[in-house]
Amino acid sequence: MFFSKMLIPTLKKAPSNADMVSVKLMVRSGMVRKLAAGLYELLPLGLKVLRKVENIIRQEMNGAGGQEVIFPLIFPKALWLETDRWNVYGKELFRLKDRKDAEFCLAPTAEEVVTDLIRKNIKSYKQLPVMLYQFGTKFRDEMRPRFGVLRSREFLMKDAYSFHIDEADLEKYYKTMFDAYTNICIKCGFQFRAVEAASGAIGGSFSHEFVVLTNTGEEEITWCNCGYGANSEKVECLKIEQSKEEVLPAEEILTPDTGAVEDVAKLLNLSHKKFIKTMIYIANKKPVAVLVRGDHEINEIKLQALLGADETALADEQTVISVTNAPIGFAGPAGLKNIKIIADLSVVELSNALTGANKKDYHLKNVNYKRDYNADIVADIRKVIRGDICPKCKKEELKFSRGIEIGHIFKLGAKYSKSMNASYLDATGKEKFIIMGCYGIGVTRILAAIVEQSHDDDGIIWPDNIAPFEVAIVPLNYVDEKTKETTEKIYEELSSKGLDILIDDRDERAGIKFKDADLIGIPYRITISEKNLANGNVELKARRDAKDAVRILKPEKVVSELLKIFKK
Amino acid sequence: MFFSKMLIPTLKKAPSNADMVSVKLMVRSGMVRKLAAGLYELLPLGLKVLRKVENIIRQEMNGAGGQEVIFPLIFPKALWLETDRWNVYGKELFRLKDRKDAEFCLAPTAEEVVTDLIRKNIKSYKQLPVMLYQFGTKFRDEMRPRFGVLRSREFLMKDAYSFHIDEADLEKYYKTMFDAYTNICIKCGFQFRAVEAASGAIGGSFSHEFVVLTNTGEEEITWCNCGYGANSEKVECLKIEQSKEEVLPAEEILTPDTGAVEDVAKLLNLSHKKFIKTMIYIANKKPVAVLVRGDHEINEIKLQALLGADETALADEQTVISVTNAPIGFAGPAGLKNIKIIADLSVVELSNALTGANKKDYHLKNVNYKRDYNADIVADIRKVIRGDICPKCKKEELKFSRGIEIGHIFKLGAKYSKSMNASYLDATGKEKFIIMGCYGIGVTRILAAIVEQSHDDDGIIWPDNIAPFEVAIVPLNYVDEKTKETTEKIYEELSSKGLDILIDDRDERAGIKFKDADLIGIPYRITISEKNLANGNVELKARRDAKDAVRILKPEKVVSELLKIFKK
Repeated sequence: MFFSKMLIPTLKKAPSNADMVSVKLMVRSGMVRKLAAGLYELLPLGLKVLRKVENIIRQEMNGAGGQEVIFPLIFPKALWLETDRWNVYGKELFRLKDRKDAEFCLAPTAEEVVTDLIRKNIKSYKQLPVMLYQFGTKFRDEMRPRFGVLRSREFLMKDAYSFHIDEADLEKYYKTMFDAYTNICIKCGFQFRAVEAASGAIGGSFSHEFVVLTNTGEEEITWCNCGYGANSEKVECLKIEQSKEEVLPAEEILTPDTGAVEDVAKLLNLSHKKFIKTMIYIANKKPVAVLVRGDHEINEIKLQALLGADETALADEQTVISVTNAPIGFAGPAGLKNIKIIADLSVVELSNALTGANKKDYHLKNVNYKRDYNADIVADIRKVIRGDICPKCKKEELKFSRGIEIGHIFKLGAKYSKSMNASYLDATGKEKFIIMGCYGIGVTRILAAIVEQSHDDDGIIWPDNIAPFEVAIVPLNYVDEKTKETTEKIYEELSSKGLDILIDDRDERAGIKFKDADLIGIPYRITISEKNLANGNVELKARRDAKDAVRILKPEKVVSELLKIFKK
Repeated sequence: MFFSKMLIPTLKKAPSNADMVSVKLMVRSGMVRKLAAGLYELLPLGLKVLRKVENIIRQEMNGAGGQEVIFPLIFPKALWLETDRWNVYGKELFRLKDRKDAEFCLAPTAEEVVTDLIRKNIKSYKQLPVMLYQFGTKFRDEMRPRFGVLRSREFLMKDAYSFHIDEADLEKYYKTMFDAYTNICIKCGFQFRAVEAASGAIGGSFSHEFVVLTNTGEEEITWCNCGYGANSEKVECLKIEQSKEEVLPAEEILTPDTGAVEDVAKLLNLSHKKFIKTMIYIANKKPVAVLVRGDHEINEIKLQALLGADETALADEQTVISVTNAPIGFAGPAGLKNIKIIADLSVVELSNALTGANKKDYHLKNVNYKRDYNADIVADIRKVIRGDICPKCKKEELKFSRGIEIGHIFKLGAKYSKSMNASYLDATGKEKFIIMGCYGIGVTRILAAIVEQSHDDDGIIWPDNIAPFEVAIVPLNYVDEKTKETTEKIYEELSSKGLDILIDDRDERAGIKFKDADLIGIPYRITISEKNLANGNVELKARRDAKDAVRILKPEKVVSELLKIFKK
């Protein structure tokens, strides 16, 4: 392919609102263009990369026994009412009406649709297991679309759904898919971790995220050398044990003009670790009091899971006053009535803690569990912090990394089959719910994740197997007869063996051609200059090597080396 | 692939609301399922066929120098306002709002988006021509979704857009694309015609439709042995000359209780051909009087083109009364004032015609052009009818065929580049509008068109190069050791050469297996029975051959024949 014939609109500068390296480089290299907030066009170079990633994924899905399908992108409301996701999903769901005012949503994932297909067409245990997958556009009306294709409103996703006779079969297949996802990450050249994760809007009992490690990623994961790994939202926090002190009498103290833990800690010259923060939440439409240590934060995802609530929110001031008889900032568990109290594991370990006194301008000192307050539930409800110990080996401190979530696999169990009544007859003729798993991977996301992980100051560095072209030939003066001849000869020899080559035939200065080649990030560059040709040589340079790691070689040698590298 | 491992939910009966052979057979053979009105799921077998069609198209588009891209499916309103299509497109356009109440539409075609991309990234004549194409989901909120994937609300389309320095270059490229579309039709095995067509909502000056000939198609085309062909909506109607009669004096006659041409013709015992039908239309917000012969119908598409109106509609009764001073049914050109009169070519040929008298219960006899009325425009504004003569050779009668439109190519000229200000600098530095063409082909439509054209009472008959599998092996008793062995051997030998094979390993009766094989329509079936195996033989049958055209052959012979057929 000739550069001059291809739409590769490279840019010297990234758009000023590009907020991540990957979007800067993808725009600058002419792979993508932004149509509107969260809506991206994939240009020819971007599409070539996308197809390669798609094929890596397809190969793994077929290897796992998957069958490819295509579902519509417009889903009727009726199906989404069956699972109640029409109401639960919130503003991220794009909704629309047709000319007859019937309501629809645009696909964010396809659990309802695939479950509907299966319940209508699978009747017997003999037809199970089945795994269906598709490469389909997905839509999410993000509150704040950003980071290019990483958090866009429309993106390409491979979503897969598996159907089983029981949990044991799902468990087995979940491992197969875990391995397939691991292979995809390896084939994309990722530094990554598979970690336990919260299941969010998809639901189900258990899930793993595949996170590509980058300093700039939105996700935070925790992990341990023992092999444990989890999304920070999900990681189990062990209770922090404390050496017990002699129990002192409770004492009300005046703390005017305070409210935040910081203020009180300063006033009393006391460590945050001695505090019990008491927050009034609304869950399932009722107030609950939630206690964590002063230096901890409440993890609402854990709280929701614990309470079986679709959402939780801090109560408004009026509710706080009516529950605690005091303005916000003075709540404490001692003396609270008619409200469920939920304490974090580490809270009940505290001796002589400080809490609000449920009285304006007063705190209570030397508060002790069981003597001064009780909790209805004691559980892990806090966010992980630096210094927490691994919940698996219980020895080492957890490590923290940032990254980009590219895949997420879920054990759904009977969540969807129950609400949609998807059942089968087992060998004894008994009707049972079908057990499900689902498996998503962001295809456009993978492109951005590769760029985040594999670039330098000059541009992208594509892995050999994913690059839009395998080799770039850069003739410095394509009008020169000998240059043209050599270019064509090398091109013929490489492309006849199946290598995909870009020839920069443009009438541009060498500097511009080199800059564009580096920016686009094709793994190997052959430079053909009249100077080297005079000695019968050309230059070969790998994109990932240092700028001066150029080798002057005979064209035949360049061809044979490249064929060897690409195993052709 | 084993039948038992694949989701192929064949049905004995088609759903009662299936309204065309193709949808009946596609549903029965387990290729597609309906999710809701106009929304179809493509199951594994359907997707396999789709991918083959996609690849045929992709090959032709790349051969025509096209570059594949992917555009978003949600388009911002602002772009559509630039071309005014936001207002013109009407109810077929799905519209939606995001969480911030910004307005969008779902892609029906992508002219605005691609023109926006090009105007931002193409500056010089050196960068032209460019052709971009995509395989993308398209959305149309059909008034009455029907005929399965033929008139669905969501479908897969290949849309392509070309950009040129001038009309001459577009003209040349239009021919290239015409040839590419012809090749696609040939490779899909179609009986088809490429005919001149009206441009509709896409606009532009000139277009061709590619119509697959089937008795059941929605489209009607006209054609002639001389090579002419056109959509019936578009075909040029020659004037029908009449031998002139002696001109008689005009005469008002009482015609009570009439109104429709039929009633008057009956009352006066007069041929329809002697009538001038006068219809009052509203075009560009003004009434116009439109005249056609009594046996002709007005072609609103021609009328709109003639008047440069986006739409035309019959005037309401109030308007008719105020224009003609008479109720509907008594309009005539003689004496009409303050209104533009448009007469069809064949109207002004009439001698002593009959028209309404613009007076309740009266008609006017012996009306003659120029003497009794004038027309502001005399032009071809009628629909073609049986008996009309070919406008090209002007000799033979036009022939009529029905068919399915699968592709449509357009010369757009500067329609979009003018309204969106997409220009380039020519070699002399002068700014000029980019000249455009666009080219669409319905990918899911092609599947249905193949089925319409290629089926029998038992099911689909796929062409060899498009079939979901090339060969079906049907072992009658897969539990039998020798049957299994022979099946596996044939499978190995064929699939190792690249043939895609479906083995019907189900524990079902032979009758069911044969019925399903015929229904699915795989081109070649190898039947393996214990009876034939006893003599070392198997059966080979081509799907397209008669039921009894079964050949009993040695397995080696079957393998070698099939490899020869598929050129492996």
